[in-house]
Formats: sequence, C-alpha cells, structure tokens
Amino acid sequence: MGSIDNLPRQFASQFPQNTLEPEEFRRQGHMMIDFLADYYRKIKNYPVRSQVSPGYLREILPESAPCNPESLETILQDVQTKIIPGITHWQSPNFFAYFPSSGSTAGFLGEMLSTGFNVVGFNWMASPAATELENVVTDWFGKMLQLPKSFLFSGGGGGVLQGTTCEAILCTLVAARDKNLRQHGMDNIGKLVVYCSDQTHSALQKAAKIAGMDPKNFRTIETSKSSNFQLCPKRLESAILYDVQNGLIPMYLCATVGTTSSTAVDPLASLTEVAKRYELWVHVDAAFAGSACICPEFRQYLDGVENADSFSLNAHKWFLTTLDCCCLWVKNPSALIKSLSTYPEYLRNNATETNKVVDYKDWQIMLSRRFRALKLWFVLRSYGVGQLREFIRGHVGMAKYFEGLVAMDNRFEVVVPRHFSMVCFRIQPSAMIGKNDEKEVNEINRKLLESVNESGRIYVSHTVLGGVYVIRFAIGGTLTDINHVSAAWKVVQDYAGSLLVDAFVSKKNVNK
Amino acid sequence: MGSIDNLPRQFASQFPQNTLEPEEFRRQGHMMIDFLADYYRKIKNYPVRSQVSPGYLREILPESAPCNPESLETILQDVQTKIIPGITHWQSPNFFAYFPSSGSTAGFLGEMLSTGFNVVGFNWMASPAATELENVVTDWFGKMLQLPKSFLFSGGGGGVLQGTTCEAILCTLVAARDKNLRQHGMDNIGKLVVYCSDQTHSALQKAAKIAGMDPKNFRTIETSKSSNFQLCPKRLESAILYDVQNGLIPMYLCATVGTTSSTAVDPLASLTEVAKRYELWVHVDAAFAGSACICPEFRQYLDGVENADSFSLNAHKWFLTTLDCCCLWVKNPSALIKSLSTYPEYLRNNATETNKVVDYKDWQIMLSRRFRALKLWFVLRSYGVGQLREFIRGHVGMAKYFEGLVAMDNRFEVVVPRHFSMVCFRIQPSAMIGKNDEKEVNEINRKLLESVNESGRIYVSHTVLGGVYVIRFAIGGTLTDINHVSAAWKVVQDYAGSLLVDAFVSKKNVNK
Repeated sequence: MGSIDNLPRQFASQFPQNTLEPEEFRRQGHMMIDFLADYYRKIKNYPVRSQVSPGYLREILPESAPCNPESLETILQDVQTKIIPGITHWQSPNFFAYFPSSGSTAGFLGEMLSTGFNVVGFNWMASPAATELENVVTDWFGKMLQLPKSFLFSGGGGGVLQGTTCEAILCTLVAARDKNLRQHGMDNIGKLVVYCSDQTHSALQKAAKIAGMDPKNFRTIETSKSSNFQLCPKRLESAILYDVQNGLIPMYLCATVGTTSSTAVDPLASLTEVAKRYELWVHVDAAFAGSACICPEFRQYLDGVENADSFSLNAHKWFLTTLDCCCLWVKNPSALIKSLSTYPEYLRNNATETNKVVDYKDWQIMLSRRFRALKLWFVLRSYGVGQLREFIRGHVGMAKYFEGLVAMDNRFEVVVPRHFSMVCFRIQPSAMIGKNDEKEVNEINRKLLESVNESGRIYVSHTVLGGVYVIRFAIGGTLTDINHVSAAWKVVQDYAGSLLVDAFVSKKNVNK
Repeated sequence: MGSIDNLPRQFASQFPQNTLEPEEFRRQGHMMIDFLADYYRKIKNYPVRSQVSPGYLREILPESAPCNPESLETILQDVQTKIIPGITHWQSPNFFAYFPSSGSTAGFLGEMLSTGFNVVGFNWMASPAATELENVVTDWFGKMLQLPKSFLFSGGGGGVLQGTTCEAILCTLVAARDKNLRQHGMDNIGKLVVYCSDQTHSALQKAAKIAGMDPKNFRTIETSKSSNFQLCPKRLESAILYDVQNGLIPMYLCATVGTTSSTAVDPLASLTEVAKRYELWVHVDAAFAGSACICPEFRQYLDGVENADSFSLNAHKWFLTTLDCCCLWVKNPSALIKSLSTYPEYLRNNATETNKVVDYKDWQIMLSRRFRALKLWFVLRSYGVGQLREFIRGHVGMAKYFEGLVAMDNRFEVVVPRHFSMVCFRIQPSAMIGKNDEKEVNEINRKLLESVNESGRIYVSHTVLGGVYVIRFAIGGTLTDINHVSAAWKVVQDYAGSLLVDAFVSKKNVNK
C-alpha cells in the first residue's frame, strides 16, 4: 500500500528523462551562456535593424513540430542562421531607436534566477520571498527617487512590479473608475472623463478603451512647440470645466515626465493643483525618464509628484533591468485592491487572513506573476546607486555631445530642447536649396531615416511634432559609448549629404 | 566635427564599465548556471512550502539600496541564506499544490536566450523573428492539439503568446464587448451579460470588472456533484433566455476544460451549440488541462472547440515552458485588433503599411512584449511531440497510481472522478468514529492539509466542492517521479493517522 518497494514496474521507463536533470542542465546552461557572450562580442557587426522580408521565417522552418528530440547544438545553429538575421538588435551599441531596452549582466542574472526558481508568486504564501523582496526593492527605489513617503510601504502606500506601463495605467485607471462608480453609480460609466495631452503615450487611450470608457469622453489636450509640447494646466482646467458644465464626471489625468515623442515634461506641480480641485486621480507616467530622477540634478522634473496618486517608470528601459519590469507606486493600495482583488476558495490561506501580508495578485491584472524583484535587486546591488547615477549621466553626456554635433552642422537643427538622453533633430529647411516647403522637408527627413536604417549601421526612429517630421536619437544602450555616438553622427551626415545633393540635382533638372 | 579623434577626453572615465562586457557576462553567467544546477540538486531537501513568517525579509535586509557595487559572490550568498528560505519550491518534486509550474532545461534556455537578446517585439519591424517565430510555433502547437484550421494562421485565425490566462480572457472579453457595442451602441455597456459556471476561474470575474461590465450582469451558473461540476447547457440556456426577456444582451461565455478546483470538463459541444443560437463569444479556458490534449486519448475533451471563438492554455503550467506563457488562439484576429490596436506616429513603419505582417501589440493589452516564442520553440524541439506526450502520460499514470492508493485505504475517498493528473481526495466521514457531520469532516481535512504542509515534506492545496473540503493533489512537476508520489501518500497517511487518533481520543474524553 504505497510503499516504494512495490511500485508498478512499468513506471520506470515511462517518463521522459533529463528534462531538468541538474548535470544536463549545467552542461546546456554553460553552452547557452557561451552562446550569448559570443553574441555580445559580435553584436556590433550585425545590421542593427533586421533586413529580412515579411514571411522569411515560415519559409525556412518546418511546417510542424518535430516528433523526436533535437539537440541543443542543432537548435543553436538554427538560432544563429535563422533567428539572428530576423532580430533587430536592441542591445547593439548602435541602436538609437524608440527608447532603449537596456540589458545588463546583473539584470540578466536576476531574470535567470527568477526563471530557475520558476515560482508563481500570486500571493505571499505562494512564495513569501517573491512578495517581500518586491516590497523591499520598490521601497529602495522609491527612496532613490525621493518619492514622498506616502508612496512607500512605510508610509501607507507601496510599490509593485508589473510588466509594462500599459498595465500600470490600466490598473490605476480601473481603480479611479471604480472609485467614481461607487460614488456615482455603475450607470454613470458613460459620464467619466479621462484627460491627457496629444503627447501622452497611446497606452492611456488603449487602457481607457479596455476599461470601457466611452471614447467620446477621452480628452486629448493639444500641445504646441511654443510650450515644448507640455500639457498646459490652463487648457486642462478649461476642458474639465466644460465637461463639468455638460454633466460629465472628470476622473483621471495622465501626466508625463519624458514623453515618447520628445521627452517633454508636463508641469506636475500645477497640473496636480488643477486636478486636486476636481478630484481627479493623477497618474504620472515617467516610463523612460523616471530613471534619470535618481540623480539630484534631474529630480526637479518630479516636483509635484507628491500630489499625484500613482507614479510609474519602466526599469527595463533605462535602468539595466531586462524586459519586462514596470515599477508602479501608489499612495492608496486599497483603491487598487478594491478593483482588482479576487479570493477564490482554492487560494484561501492563513497568511492572507491575518491581513499582515501583501497579496500582489490584487495589485495587478494577472493572477500569476514572475519573481521580477530579483532582477531589480541584482541591478541595484551589483551597480549601487553611485554607478547607476553615472550610467544615466553618461548617456545624458553623450546626448549633449550629439546635440553639439548637430548644432555645429548648419544643415541640421535640434527641434526641441533636450532634457535627458534623447535628441530630436532634422535636416532643416534652409539646407534644401529651392525646396523648402514643410512637406518637402518632412519628406527628405523621412528618406534620411529610411536610408540610414536600411544601411543597418545604426537604427533610429521618428516622430511628428507639430507637423514636423523629426528623427529621434535616443541614447541609453548599455554597450553604447561615445565612439558609437560619434560614428552614428557620421552615418547621418553621410546619408544626408547624398540626399541633399540628389534633391538639388533633381530640382535643377526640373527647372531646366 | 564628430570624428572619433577629437572626442572630449572626459568621456573616457565617465561611464560605468562592464555592465554588459562579454567576458564578465560569461564569468558571472557560468556562476549562475552552477548555482542553479546546485539548487536543483538540493531542491528535494528544502521544505516545500516556505516556513518563514510575514515580514521576515525586511528585518534582514538593509533599509536602502547600497551606494557602491557588490559582488555576485556576495549577492548569491544572500540568495542562499535570505531568499531561498522564503521560497516555496514550485520546482520541488514534492510540490503538488495549485497547478504545477513545470520548468525544464529547454524552457529555461529559451527564456535565457530571450532575456539575452532583450528585444521588444511590439510590432513586426521591431524584431521580425520575434513575431514570425510566434506565428510558427502557435501554428505548430495548434496542429499538435488538432485545433481546427480556422484557429491557425493558415486558416485565417492565429495564435499569440500572452502572459497569463487572465490576459487572454480580458482581451477576448473586450473584443466581444466591443463587437456588441458597435452593434448596440456604447450606451448599452450596462446590458451586456457574461456567463460562466461557479467553477470557472476567478480570472473571468476580474476581467469582466476590468472591462467595465456591470457586476450584476455576471452570471455564475451553479454546478453540482451529480454532474461532476460541469457547466450544464440547459441551465446556461435558461439563464440566457431569462436575460433576453429582461432586455439584456448575452455576450460572452467562458467554458473550461479542466477547472481549477477539480479539473472538471465542461461539455463544449453542447455549450457552443447554445451559445451559437444567441451569438455569444465562446472562450475555452484550458489553462492546465489543454496540454494533455496533444495525446490522442485526451483530445476528446476538446470536442466542440471548433465552434468556439477563442481557446487558451498555459504552456507554463504543464508543458515545461517557464512562467509566463499563455497560448491564445482566435478565429477572428480582427476582432481583437479592432479593440486593441493603436498606431501612434512613432510606431508607423513600412512593414505595417503593407498589411503583410502581424503586429502583436494589437493582439494584447501591453505594447512591449518579450520574445516568448523562443522558449516554446525550444521546448517543442528539445523534447519533440513524442516525449511531450510521454511527459503528460507519465503524470497521468502517477495520478492513477495515487488514486489507487487512496482507494485502497478505506479511511479516504476520491471525491470526484479524475480526468488528468490531479486527484481530489479527503478523509471520509466514516473514518471519523462518532464525529461525522460534514463540518467536522471538513475540519479534520483542513487540519490534515495544514499539518502536511507545515511539515515541509510535501505541499498540497485545497478547494471546496459542493460544501465539501477537498485536498487537491496535482501532479505535474518536472522532477516528480513515482517515488515522490508514493512517499507523499505515506506522509498523508501518517498525518491522517495521528489526527484520527487525536479526534477519537478527544471524542472519548468528551463522552466520559
């Protein structure tokens, strides 16, 4: 009856072997580390933006999964020959597109460890260390950012590590929505209004749609070049007043520190003042630029955050912590919990009943959650606050240098003031002899971007600011140093030179 | 002007070194592999459920992040002495709680590679291989499950890898909601009704709340032991009819293959027939048990899925793919895209404009996304369909064996029929001489669970089925073999024996 001696014999051969056998794990793990170390060695040689065409991979992979096991050696060979050509190399020192996705050895190791433990930390009980380390590191990070105590666990608030800003925004939006619906009744969901600027990340609009907000109650307040694309508190208040007069219920404001297009910084202090008068939930999205605020010289950009309800940044962008790791701090966790809590019988446990623990499942959309705190802890400890500040300052310094290079070449202009490590520039109209209407200028800049990216030597991306097509040069790659920035500028200059000559020649031909 | 020769000298020392230097990455990576291989070696010796008390970690960690770098050696020592005691060891061969979180060497390596590349594959352009491999592996997996072609890319549908089932359900629910709102008008959001059974995972209720559904339009249809806790199609239809008569709009049904409490299987064929008549979106949640359906002998449980709109399972549960990896297939991707698409200027690109590529950001809540396809690809190739089936069959075989052990001990009973690798059992009333009202029986089973878990020798979890407290014994750990199952049963027997004696003695004393 259940003794080990009389086990049915057929079991012995029935189970696949070695799927997690320690010595085989060790052997293959070392192989993978070597593969990746070699990848980083070679990374600068790959075209930064992948040069494959749509559908390339399906053509070279089998139509079905194999019946029999294949060796790691075979699979890695396919990674090298079939996957790597299809990768846009975000870790390349010559990647300057979008925002950086800054990996690091420490972030990588923390993620490895988390994957190795493979715990599912939905509540405290399911793995206490996963929850408690997250409590500790979000407090650490919050202190580094000089967040007010009300955002820390010690002050009644607290931090949580989610996947991305999209998730953080959705969670806080739902909390704000439900707070209003409790007050005004479920039937009034169609009256709730969400505010942002035309520079706010599209994540907000998506979150509002997901949360069932009426799209006609989504207020996108216009910004302009004259105010560096900041959200204007007066315009916000006008919009709110108009909505109130029309019987709507203002509910949520998303302010941004470091917008995606141009790293504009919304004036938090005056915006939160307006928001307070109308009882709006204010979320501050500092996805990219928040990390910089660990440096005293950048902390000013967060002034006013003390009057916000929630604040988030992506440690996976410019803080060496691999994707994904969005840090969200809230002043009032119970608002999140009221909206997001579930407590089915199969998860009931003594620890939760004591009310002495945090159950992070109630702070986020998902139930299951990875042990993300490990990688943030590894990054904070491996580099320390001092080096992390230098990391940020290094990139900002490189951006200043790049800005100087742009300024020295009178064919180009910096389009908006630079705050952090991104420079928005373009070929300026005066460089285009005889061809300087805005549409043509936009077109040559679009061509410049495309030709630079097609070269594979660097990768940059674009935006449009007040009708102006702009090239975004975002510095933040872990492997990027000043030489890469310098060489990147040479690439831009070379392609711009050819394009301007071509434009001049074609203009002359047309005029003949 | 930007040449490498005349760089400002101060840059040289300004940047932190070695945050991703290949040789240092290699050295530390090998250390971490060894640490994890040793962890797997020792894992069976750790108490399965962590034995720490709330707040244990804050007491032993510093209050702030360090200023200066610390070595990996130091950090790993802290992992060993401070983190591991707080871990509930989901990879332990003696973990039988919740559902398994089955890691494997292949899944781990795939995740490592994904972390190493650290690409952000929000759209095709941002890393074509990330999107295309996901297209390929979801088609592969769909074929292994014999999903109808309409769920595959080749048939106009397609698969996507999300984080968890919570996310998959929320996405499909929002798609269904918006389809209805487009038809009936935004004002009718308060009339939409969601259906499920009282066994459906709490993820659905949470998703409905997030999506702004009125909680009073959430229909939880009662199940019973007599029908093995299946959702009854007739009851569903009655509920729908009642709602229609009351002017409400039936919208979404979530059916489950392998419920969390007891792995009950809802009758998909007849449920989808009912749903079709009222134009409900049917989602099939096979989070745990879906993996089993790659074996022909279990495929019957999916019969009827061809009439559903969407289907999901968690490859991170019982398919060797580390957390997180939820596979979602939909017949009509455009329904998802209509609800979840965003296209800000800074993401515009030629590939998207051609309409020849999949941009997965429009299939999910988040914008940024990890390269999850790698780990599923690694698992499928490293083990092959044949071994993956044996892996499933092995666990089912162990569960059958465990079921036999329970049946042979007349103090216990198996509470519901076993379909897959989970056995729901309890001490049965007749074992409790003179103490057999249902409340007392529940209490002794609760005590049994608690004492077994406190021992640290195994970890099991519970549920309540029709008022009956049940111990769930879920097999699926990668390291679990028949000896662990056998030994686990010994542990249960030992603690039950003591509890039953104590109960008998105390009863006798009371009766004195």
